[in-house]
Amino acid sequence: MFVYADNAATTSVSKTALNAMLPFLTEQYGNPSSLYSFGQNAAEALQAARETIAKCLNADPREIYFTSGGSEADNQAIVSAARLGARKGKKHLISTKFEHHAVLHTLNKLEKEGFEVTLLDVHEDGVVRLEDLEAAIREDTALVTVMFANNEIGTVQPIAQIGALCREKKIPFHCDAVQAAGHMPIDVKAMNIDMLAISGHKFHAPKGVGALYARKGMVLTNIIEGGAQERGKRAGTENVAGIAAMAAALEESCANMEENTAKIIPMRDKLFAELGKIPHSKINGSLEHHVPGTVNMCFEGIEGESLLLMLDDAGICASSGSACTSGSLDPSHVLLAIGLPHEVAHGSLRLSIGEYNTMEEIDHIIETVPKVVDYLRAMSPVWDELQKGQRPHLI
Amino acid sequence: MFVYADNAATTSVSKTALNAMLPFLTEQYGNPSSLYSFGQNAAEALQAARETIAKCLNADPREIYFTSGGSEADNQAIVSAARLGARKGKKHLISTKFEHHAVLHTLNKLEKEGFEVTLLDVHEDGVVRLEDLEAAIREDTALVTVMFANNEIGTVQPIAQIGALCREKKIPFHCDAVQAAGHMPIDVKAMNIDMLAISGHKFHAPKGVGALYARKGMVLTNIIEGGAQERGKRAGTENVAGIAAMAAALEESCANMEENTAKIIPMRDKLFAELGKIPHSKINGSLEHHVPGTVNMCFEGIEGESLLLMLDDAGICASSGSACTSGSLDPSHVLLAIGLPHEVAHGSLRLSIGEYNTMEEIDHIIETVPKVVDYLRAMSPVWDELQKGQRPHLI
Repeated sequence: MFVYADNAATTSVSKTALNAMLPFLTEQYGNPSSLYSFGQNAAEALQAARETIAKCLNADPREIYFTSGGSEADNQAIVSAARLGARKGKKHLISTKFEHHAVLHTLNKLEKEGFEVTLLDVHEDGVVRLEDLEAAIREDTALVTVMFANNEIGTVQPIAQIGALCREKKIPFHCDAVQAAGHMPIDVKAMNIDMLAISGHKFHAPKGVGALYARKGMVLTNIIEGGAQERGKRAGTENVAGIAAMAAALEESCANMEENTAKIIPMRDKLFAELGKIPHSKINGSLEHHVPGTVNMCFEGIEGESLLLMLDDAGICASSGSACTSGSLDPSHVLLAIGLPHEVAHGSLRLSIGEYNTMEEIDHIIETVPKVVDYLRAMSPVWDELQKGQRPHLI
Repeated sequence: MFVYADNAATTSVSKTALNAMLPFLTEQYGNPSSLYSFGQNAAEALQAARETIAKCLNADPREIYFTSGGSEADNQAIVSAARLGARKGKKHLISTKFEHHAVLHTLNKLEKEGFEVTLLDVHEDGVVRLEDLEAAIREDTALVTVMFANNEIGTVQPIAQIGALCREKKIPFHCDAVQAAGHMPIDVKAMNIDMLAISGHKFHAPKGVGALYARKGMVLTNIIEGGAQERGKRAGTENVAGIAAMAAALEESCANMEENTAKIIPMRDKLFAELGKIPHSKINGSLEHHVPGTVNMCFEGIEGESLLLMLDDAGICASSGSACTSGSLDPSHVLLAIGLPHEVAHGSLRLSIGEYNTMEEIDHIIETVPKVVDYLRAMSPVWDELQKGQRPHLI
């Protein structure tokens, strides 16, 4: 049995998305910047996609900028707010310790340029505290950037409250919503979000396309310079097919959100309930504020990587952290941020379920994981020491 | 009759390219950064694409970095050389007056940061002179960036000689080869090119994917920060489908290059010969050093935009300058750079022919353009003044 349980890493391209893009990979190959009607067909497709995406986020179409993905959108939002702030003498940036690296590395780069960065603690439940944010805000704060839902543990942040606080303090608020878009309701107006990043391939569009929402009045700095595409804010001939697919996929995901969630939650809950019975296991992050499909657990005494490879042998696609850091030997910065010790963080497993998964697949996971954990523990010198009381159990 | 004669703006996606990408838009949706075999299928596709593209350019696969397009690749090459130079106290950048805006705007941004930019003159034949470059090179020159073939007039620059000179002077040489890749032989080793940008949609791959070649030893600065994709030099989940398509399209274009050129040249020559008979018309740039398919002409007394709209009515897709600047009312910076007066540059027409065009289509263009030019001139007050001798003919 093949079970794809890594929907937080990427998703399959839906039939709707593929059908939306195919015309632009065949007959409709015009350049949207061209004056003639054949080019204008492509321009109209871009405009329709912009309207669809804006509607899904409760934004204005003119507030949507197409990018090559979530990372580029995050980069542009943060750099834009930093440059805008610097012109007003504001060089303090606030974020959290468990953001995606698209955010953290951009902040790091700005830090080297002389910006000051405050990374808020994340509590054990995987949620940042509003009072911590409030305490961190300064007169010279140029940006608050907090992710909607964490990519590894799936916990959802108090975005509306953060937005309200930032608006009150007149600080631009960027939200990396890559894990949330298409899976949870997003309303940039009601939530007082000034900038927001989404990535198509997390909601059944193809890889390599994303969007940045930037509220009217936000001054964007280009990440990519060149032609006057995207109202001069993002150069390069537009990925028309990908953009059309992204709009169709987001529209479909938003239209089916309740239904999908209702399908996913029982699968996720069964995973939590059954895998939680494995001794010395731990569920990471609170279940209270959570994207529907993500399950993150630790199993003491084993290495996440070995677990993944054995699950792969059993046909199960899962991850230990985010795909973007899978080559790294360091434990997940997210799990360290929520207070897990290094040894425990190494034994992590992320299962992320989508609407295309079935309860039969969940049962296959539930049958397989305990066996694999047992097998790996039987070979683990660390587990042996834990069993003999030579080292203390941490979970 | 529908005639697509704007292949320099964008090309149709070839069947080969579409077939190469479809598996990654359907069954093979794994994330190439994922450890499990389903993800590794995608990683292998990326590696295969890297090898194919490297082979087409005579590069090493490790020297190929996938980007969202030619603009991003140009941006990254230039910024990388600038940052590298600055660390050695070298802050002088050399380019030409008729580069694509992806180059010119990036240079402009660096100029604001304190870099000094020398833009070489382009002669009337649309070719830069090696002696001009030699004279511009200084002790503190950090980069020479010259395009392979100009996007508006199609003239090819003495890339191998520029490469040899830069190598001798130990100055990094970047080449925007967006208009040349797939259409002319490129050998980065023989031509001593250190960095080179290509864009898939100019050679029958879809829009939104490109590549940067950077010679081993070149230190790249990230344009997009985040995950460790592309050996840490370009973050963001890879556009696997687009990359596979780009590799297949480039391989096909390179394999068929002689055959395609042999098909295109007679069509182009017929266009030049027949449209050149229109009185007070001018061929822009030399035909001696030229990409196969591009024809750029000016017709005195008319506006390029009106010409395009009337050609559109006749089913002919053409442009006046590059698609990237089509919204602009300014005359083409390329045509001004080769010395055309403003009034003449306004009346420009670019026809760019590909291997999918037919001689019947060329005949349709040849029948239509003179009629449209006559019609527009009959309504043009400028042409009236020219006819009455109230203003001098410039061409």
